[in-house]
Amino acid sequence: MRGQCTYTLGELARICGVEVEGDPCTLIEGVGTLEGAEPGEITFLTNPLYRAQLGHTRATAVILKKQDREATDLPCLITDNPHGCYARVAQKLFPEVRPQPGIHGTAEIHPEARISPLASIGAQAVIEAGALIDDGVVVGAGGYVGERVHLAQDVFLYPRVTLYAGVTLGPRTLVHSGVVIGADGFGMAWQEGRWLKIPQVGSVRIGADVEIGANTTIDRGAIEDTVIEEGVKLDNLIQIAHNCRIGAHTVIAGCTGISGSSRIGARCRIGGGVGIVGHVEICDGVTVSGFSLITKSITQPGVYTSAIPSQPHREWLHTLAHLRGLPEWAERIRRLEMAQVQHDH
Amino acid sequence: MRGQCTYTLGELARICGVEVEGDPCTLIEGVGTLEGAEPGEITFLTNPLYRAQLGHTRATAVILKKQDREATDLPCLITDNPHGCYARVAQKLFPEVRPQPGIHGTAEIHPEARISPLASIGAQAVIEAGALIDDGVVVGAGGYVGERVHLAQDVFLYPRVTLYAGVTLGPRTLVHSGVVIGADGFGMAWQEGRWLKIPQVGSVRIGADVEIGANTTIDRGAIEDTVIEEGVKLDNLIQIAHNCRIGAHTVIAGCTGISGSSRIGARCRIGGGVGIVGHVEICDGVTVSGFSLITKSITQPGVYTSAIPSQPHREWLHTLAHLRGLPEWAERIRRLEMAQVQHDH
Amino acid sequence: MRGQCTYTLGELARICGVEVEGDPCTLIEGVGTLEGAEPGEITFLTNPLYRAQLGHTRATAVILKKQDREATDLPCLITDNPHGCYARVAQKLFPEVRPQPGIHGTAEIHPEARISPLASIGAQAVIEAGALIDDGVVVGAGGYVGERVHLAQDVFLYPRVTLYAGVTLGPRTLVHSGVVIGADGFGMAWQEGRWLKIPQVGSVRIGADVEIGANTTIDRGAIEDTVIEEGVKLDNLIQIAHNCRIGAHTVIAGCTGISGSSRIGARCRIGGGVGIVGHVEICDGVTVSGFSLITKSITQPGVYTSAIPSQPHREWLHTLAHLRGLPEWAERIRRLEMAQVQHDH
Repeated sequence: MRGQCTYTLGELARICGVEVEGDPCTLIEGVGTLEGAEPGEITFLTNPLYRAQLGHTRATAVILKKQDREATDLPCLITDNPHGCYARVAQKLFPEVRPQPGIHGTAEIHPEARISPLASIGAQAVIEAGALIDDGVVVGAGGYVGERVHLAQDVFLYPRVTLYAGVTLGPRTLVHSGVVIGADGFGMAWQEGRWLKIPQVGSVRIGADVEIGANTTIDRGAIEDTVIEEGVKLDNLIQIAHNCRIGAHTVIAGCTGISGSSRIGARCRIGGGVGIVGHVEICDGVTVSGFSLITKSITQPGVYTSAIPSQPHREWLHTLAHLRGLPEWAERIRRLEMAQVQHDH
Repeated sequence: MRGQCTYTLGELARICGVEVEGDPCTLIEGVGTLEGAEPGEITFLTNPLYRAQLGHTRATAVILKKQDREATDLPCLITDNPHGCYARVAQKLFPEVRPQPGIHGTAEIHPEARISPLASIGAQAVIEAGALIDDGVVVGAGGYVGERVHLAQDVFLYPRVTLYAGVTLGPRTLVHSGVVIGADGFGMAWQEGRWLKIPQVGSVRIGADVEIGANTTIDRGAIEDTVIEEGVKLDNLIQIAHNCRIGAHTVIAGCTGISGSSRIGARCRIGGGVGIVGHVEICDGVTVSGFSLITKSITQPGVYTSAIPSQPHREWLHTLAHLRGLPEWAERIRRLEMAQVQHDH
Repeated sequence: MRGQCTYTLGELARICGVEVEGDPCTLIEGVGTLEGAEPGEITFLTNPLYRAQLGHTRATAVILKKQDREATDLPCLITDNPHGCYARVAQKLFPEVRPQPGIHGTAEIHPEARISPLASIGAQAVIEAGALIDDGVVVGAGGYVGERVHLAQDVFLYPRVTLYAGVTLGPRTLVHSGVVIGADGFGMAWQEGRWLKIPQVGSVRIGADVEIGANTTIDRGAIEDTVIEEGVKLDNLIQIAHNCRIGAHTVIAGCTGISGSSRIGARCRIGGGVGIVGHVEICDGVTVSGFSLITKSITQPGVYTSAIPSQPHREWLHTLAHLRGLPEWAERIRRLEMAQVQHDH
């Protein structure tokens, strides 16, 4: 994939603070996978499983670890963290493009909103009273920015993001299309045969450098705020319920749901399709495997799992039948043990 | 959290039909949690686990049960249902704010739509031909109201709700942003190596006092309608497939999916991340635990579960290995029993 | 349900290439279920379980298999594939309605977009530079069509679809409201205590005759493209991560998530609420049961499952306790076997 910019390998090495081997004047114009790269592109090797592919890549240069250096004659960037180095290189070759500052003629801006002249407000966006939009912010087409929302410097909202009243986003936070932040938490009380709505009067506070994937939802707090700390990365179609707190630099993969008032620590890694029940606390540094369920607090870092891989359907039916039969099998083992004890006497 | 209104404790007691203890002239200006409340705010105690926190709350008054009365000297509202009472109090202190009636200049209204002069249509909303919008309805910014949609009195659509043609919503129903109601059900027939689309010609009928969470989807019926009865509360990111019927006052938590033609009874409580297969019937008063799967009809009220809590990964791998080995273990138990029988003879 | 058109049974038989029995001049004006049909409507029988209902249907005609012919005196369409025949009949009686070509006055079109005069662009849609929109395309109200997007002939976007830059859709592909295609994949690298964003420079290519359900998300590729092949049908609230490839005519039910770089074969049937981990390959013709997890590649067609049906909660707790106890039970079986061996010697 051809980038928007061109660098020499030496310049990239300097930017990333890594070693270069081979001609530092090699021109790098894009990025590619080991298999798909075209001449002029740089590729990377993180997983030794793919080392064999190095032999026939058409890439012009490779980012890799010292121990993989001998596997290729191509010019290289040598680093302990090829993935991180690749991220920096790709950021340079494909710099983020921000629209020009200014307010599109079709956007609807409340007279009591305050918008930096260095912000960009897209077509058909709606900005409500009391919103505060800082320098460098982008509100994509059709974005909805509710009353008293604060978007800090360089926040980027892709088209069709919805922010309810009072929500705040920290600097450089990036929100993808279809995201809804600040909708009412799922709070109600049962009284006289029906549910009474409990007004959700807290808000949502989101830190700096957060990224939120498409169609993810984050509910406002019942009384106090829902909080997403700095550097958190949320994938698509995630549900964060009211009064959750997600710790700094935690990543959560798609389709995961976190119930109300749960607190996830910092630098956790939560897989996709995970469920976390309400009112639990998960300490820093926990990994939850995809498709697993967390039902109580976790106080030790580590990996936690309850996911079951599929089997051919017929085998699975047997496993299930035995699972259902476990109480009976246990009873039969007990009887065998009793018989043995009697026999031994 | 400071409210928009102020009441005396005595007024709140009267509104809620509960007893007051302590000075009925105490001014209540907001709500707070036991831990976070500020002076002037009222808090509540439902779970006796938190009774110890009563001692050092900074709240000015508390809603609690008679049996918890002795745990505090603060003025109190005494009730069997503190949660319900709190809901009423919070509704009074934070009354729902509705925009002024009128049609925003940027909304696009088909000339054959009928809109009450007491309704409010937000910026950039689109209302199609034949839509019927009653008194007190709010269509938020960017809402899409398809042909022949009927929005009954006081329906509230937050920004960016999409209602396909023919959908009807009952009085006071509240729909959050990103919701899509009436998209085609997932209906197709396999013929000659490809899928033929089956036109989805039913619609969606939603009762009174329903609430629908952000980015939830409810599909239109294949032939007859999909039906959500009155008082149902749906959380975020729920999928309701074509021709489902959800009974009155049932609540469903986030990320749950219900397959086509299933019928859920009244006053059920369906947890988050639940799956319900198609064409089943669940009777009234059933609770499904979060992350569980329902594969057949349920005819008895009660709680149903298939969720497995996580273990440390290494332990879980052992459990899984044993689970896979169950058929073999069963065989070994049988052999032991046979040996014992032979031995006894 | 009354259709928009009327046909004789004979005309429908000819269109579908099936046999008619009974009066071919019978007028058919709509469709109904066996139970709910009104006179003038045609119904169908696929499942022999419902054969008894044939006796008291009020329908005017029935689509069924030869072997069910004797169960009714009504005029019939006889076919091996009643479901497919019903699809064709319903398509005739309820022809898709497309809006008139033309660009709505409130749509915002970049001067460098190329839009066929035979396309229809709805109210408040936004079309960016370099977009290419072919004949017969419909962009619903509030749709967002990013830079360089290509919409091939007769693509239909319901209201509020978001297509990021560079996405391409094949002919006749139909996309429901709230869908987001081309948002950034979930790619980042850990470096010095924080996550670096990896620019997602691939795109999304979607084939012909694809249908995508409401609020589904399909991420753009990290380097190469995410690909959805022709005839794929995706239900609502599905997450397709970056660099996935979904083979032709595969169907995926709602709430399923597919992690990055996985490849699903052609003509697969993936149930609802399924999880598929990253970097696996699933061959053609695989069925994955709803609520199951795929953790490794599948090379044989067939049905794969790991879903556990719910039990009454109390029974389930017993099953769970025994599941947790499996390592201990295994140990006890081993001890019994040892004792027996010793005894036999």
